[in-house]
Amino acid sequence: MLSVANVLGRLLMVFSLTYLLPIICSLIYRDGTFLTFLVSQVACLAAGGLMTLATRGFQRALKPRDGFMLVTLAWLLTATIATFPLLLHLQLSFTDAFFEAMSGMTTTGATVMIHLDVLPPSINLWRHELNWIGGMGIIVLAVAILPLLGVGGMQLMRAEVPGPIKGAKLTARIADTAVVLWGVYLTITIACMLSLKVAGMGWLDAICHAFSTLSLGGFSTRDGSIGEFDSPLIETVLILFMTLAALNFATHFAVWRERSLRPFWLDGEARAVVGLLVLSCVGCALYLWEAGTYGGFLTALRFASFNLVSLATDCGFVSTDYGVWPAFVPFWMLFLSSFTASSGSTGGGIKMFRTLILVKQSSRELTRLLHPSLAAPVTIGGIVIPNGVVVAILGFLFLYFMSIVTLTFLLIFGGLDFISAFTAVIACINNAGPGLGVVGPGTNYASLTDYEIWVLSFTMLLGRLEVFSLLVLFTPQFWRK
Amino acid sequence: MLSVANVLGRLLMVFSLTYLLPIICSLIYRDGTFLTFLVSQVACLAAGGLMTLATRGFQRALKPRDGFMLVTLAWLLTATIATFPLLLHLQLSFTDAFFEAMSGMTTTGATVMIHLDVLPPSINLWRHELNWIGGMGIIVLAVAILPLLGVGGMQLMRAEVPGPIKGAKLTARIADTAVVLWGVYLTITIACMLSLKVAGMGWLDAICHAFSTLSLGGFSTRDGSIGEFDSPLIETVLILFMTLAALNFATHFAVWRERSLRPFWLDGEARAVVGLLVLSCVGCALYLWEAGTYGGFLTALRFASFNLVSLATDCGFVSTDYGVWPAFVPFWMLFLSSFTASSGSTGGGIKMFRTLILVKQSSRELTRLLHPSLAAPVTIGGIVIPNGVVVAILGFLFLYFMSIVTLTFLLIFGGLDFISAFTAVIACINNAGPGLGVVGPGTNYASLTDYEIWVLSFTMLLGRLEVFSLLVLFTPQFWRK
Ligand SMILES: [K+]
Ligand SMILES: [K+]
Repeated sequence: MLSVANVLGRLLMVFSLTYLLPIICSLIYRDGTFLTFLVSQVACLAAGGLMTLATRGFQRALKPRDGFMLVTLAWLLTATIATFPLLLHLQLSFTDAFFEAMSGMTTTGATVMIHLDVLPPSINLWRHELNWIGGMGIIVLAVAILPLLGVGGMQLMRAEVPGPIKGAKLTARIADTAVVLWGVYLTITIACMLSLKVAGMGWLDAICHAFSTLSLGGFSTRDGSIGEFDSPLIETVLILFMTLAALNFATHFAVWRERSLRPFWLDGEARAVVGLLVLSCVGCALYLWEAGTYGGFLTALRFASFNLVSLATDCGFVSTDYGVWPAFVPFWMLFLSSFTASSGSTGGGIKMFRTLILVKQSSRELTRLLHPSLAAPVTIGGIVIPNGVVVAILGFLFLYFMSIVTLTFLLIFGGLDFISAFTAVIACINNAGPGLGVVGPGTNYASLTDYEIWVLSFTMLLGRLEVFSLLVLFTPQFWRK
Repeated sequence: MLSVANVLGRLLMVFSLTYLLPIICSLIYRDGTFLTFLVSQVACLAAGGLMTLATRGFQRALKPRDGFMLVTLAWLLTATIATFPLLLHLQLSFTDAFFEAMSGMTTTGATVMIHLDVLPPSINLWRHELNWIGGMGIIVLAVAILPLLGVGGMQLMRAEVPGPIKGAKLTARIADTAVVLWGVYLTITIACMLSLKVAGMGWLDAICHAFSTLSLGGFSTRDGSIGEFDSPLIETVLILFMTLAALNFATHFAVWRERSLRPFWLDGEARAVVGLLVLSCVGCALYLWEAGTYGGFLTALRFASFNLVSLATDCGFVSTDYGVWPAFVPFWMLFLSSFTASSGSTGGGIKMFRTLILVKQSSRELTRLLHPSLAAPVTIGGIVIPNGVVVAILGFLFLYFMSIVTLTFLLIFGGLDFISAFTAVIACINNAGPGLGVVGPGTNYASLTDYEIWVLSFTMLLGRLEVFSLLVLFTPQFWRK
């Protein structure tokens, strides 16, 4: 336990570096937040330093049990620390500030804050940076930590980590992999930022939205999100980069290393994600056109594509209030948000690799009914998926579904209407952002009660830690010596 | 294929016997339906006879593939034949008549008919008899056919068939088991009928409601269902018999054979079903009382208990419009309807034995994260559940969930609102009956379009055949030589 605290202390000290960006911003814009961020930074550094010092005798190799504790506390602690500037400078309650920070760090992007347009620029930059830093955490979680812990079939990914130095020591390899992927992440973020600037955004908006695009966080500097820019060009740029962010960063790395687009084609997840997005955009545009929501097919395609790609990839930008569209389209978008993101991306939900395995497993199960003696294994791209992984993925799906059911019941128990409750849970567990009803795209999470906010803060973390890593902390076995 | 037709022909000939009851009723009540039922009976007998004769050279042992075809066609064909009296005597469209007959034969109990109170008594008796005959089909499906076909972990039940003559030839044993369980079913039905008569119903109502109670069908002779009798005594009798019908009929047989209630206690499913019902009734009554829906706790308990037990056991009687209650309670009732029925009962949904295994499997999966080398098997009552069964059950659950998702999308694609669509699918796939919204307890399925009616007819059959048995017919492998 104390060895976990030691790691967390060092994590906080590194995290304190993130305050530099809003500090610089506050100096440029003179928006009165300089002291706020400086105090927050010092507090974070001091807290981290004290934790590290107090536990310095307890540095030892971490066990799986420590791993679960570590990832949960890492998100809880950084989200708590990240509330400081919000509490110091704004009149937010701790409940709201914690939700906002957790929403940032889990890249959910649901917000309880209004009048974003008139916030000090540094505060907005801080929110977006939380998205981006959260995204970095997710990448290392997805490629290194969850596979090691064997969560929900992620052990499958162990072999696929594209370590440029295979065979090296494990921790070194994890660290190197993370650094390589962070490099890719940073590079594409810069490309996105420059593209947004060229497409017409100001520098600050471009930086902020590049942060929340690549992390698929979905925070915006405007109450009306991307809709306020009303620019087909900006929307196109964002569609492109949201899709890139929903693919495996290891594949991006391979594309860069091989100077070829072939790795995209070889990546079964990427093919499925892109294919599903294209088909869904065209299908939903036709549906909206046919239903008369938009007079022209191209207008329908513009609005359907942006909002669908945004929700499906778990980004959560909004360009119009799609809550008023015929229910089929927004519900289809929410459905896609559950699985249309690759492993090793910053998206949430079930992930495409699990979906593909589940589809193959169902087909095998049906075949087995007809030929009981036949026990052909599930294969993906010619690789045999061990039965244990299939069971783990089915188990993951069951807990994921049951979490949605339980959390929805917690919300309607408190009096929230069913559609708002159900869609808020879906949007938060997938780290997507907007739901429907009172948490729909035309509004945000500000109208919810404290009880509802806490339930959904938990939901965001549960989804981000792929259900298992958090639930395991609630088992008696975890606490048994 | 022709050998399946031969069996179906014989099935229809037996099915024609069921017209005797409404024929006798029409003679007693002189309600003008005598000719209708006589013609229907002769048509059914002739159709069956011709089918049997035409295929008499094709009697051979059936293979698993034939089994799937047989159960699907058995329900489709009897439901189609059963529409005759409805088409002949009432002004129903074929769509509506087929839905009503399928709803009867799958013991869903959803109805598209209004003015039930003024229908000819024989027609109402016919509807209720369809429930009861459907229940007989389900018992033999559950204890004999699905275990043989190995559907969704039902192979587990093979060993548990309480054949009084174990070791006998398989078909003989299946037939004997079915006859024994039908005897139990008939006996409890008669007990229910007499109890309802004593509690204040007329003979016809008592017979009809005994039919739809033991089959958990839920058809009623009144538009307002059980609410129109406004009798706490009748409600209590029905609660008792609905609960009995939701337990395994093999357990009832054991109770009778051993002249002891001990088998109920030894039946893990029975303990879970009854425990869950009691806790839920008290909990929901407290919730309704606290929410001010009912002024007194006892009134809240009366209405909560009846409607909750009715929906949870998949019966579907209604004593008040619980659609106006705070959403938590009706959604909890619908949730219970998904799994609160034993295997070997006439209830629908996932069934309690699968639920218990899923819960244990989840807990094992969480333990495995902490102790990867530990691979303790899932056990139920000390019996080890083979891994293959666990995988089959997880696979069943996945297809069950995906069916709900897909069918809900089909309905909202057609323009139905989300809550009505979602709850109609849940109510139909679980063969429970009433949903919420436009298909809520205060109304029925009459307002739906033909498209919606066909989707839901399919849903009822899909649920009744435990998803796999119907879906397997849609695989290319099934049709490959
Ligand atoms: K998001
Ligand atoms: K029913």
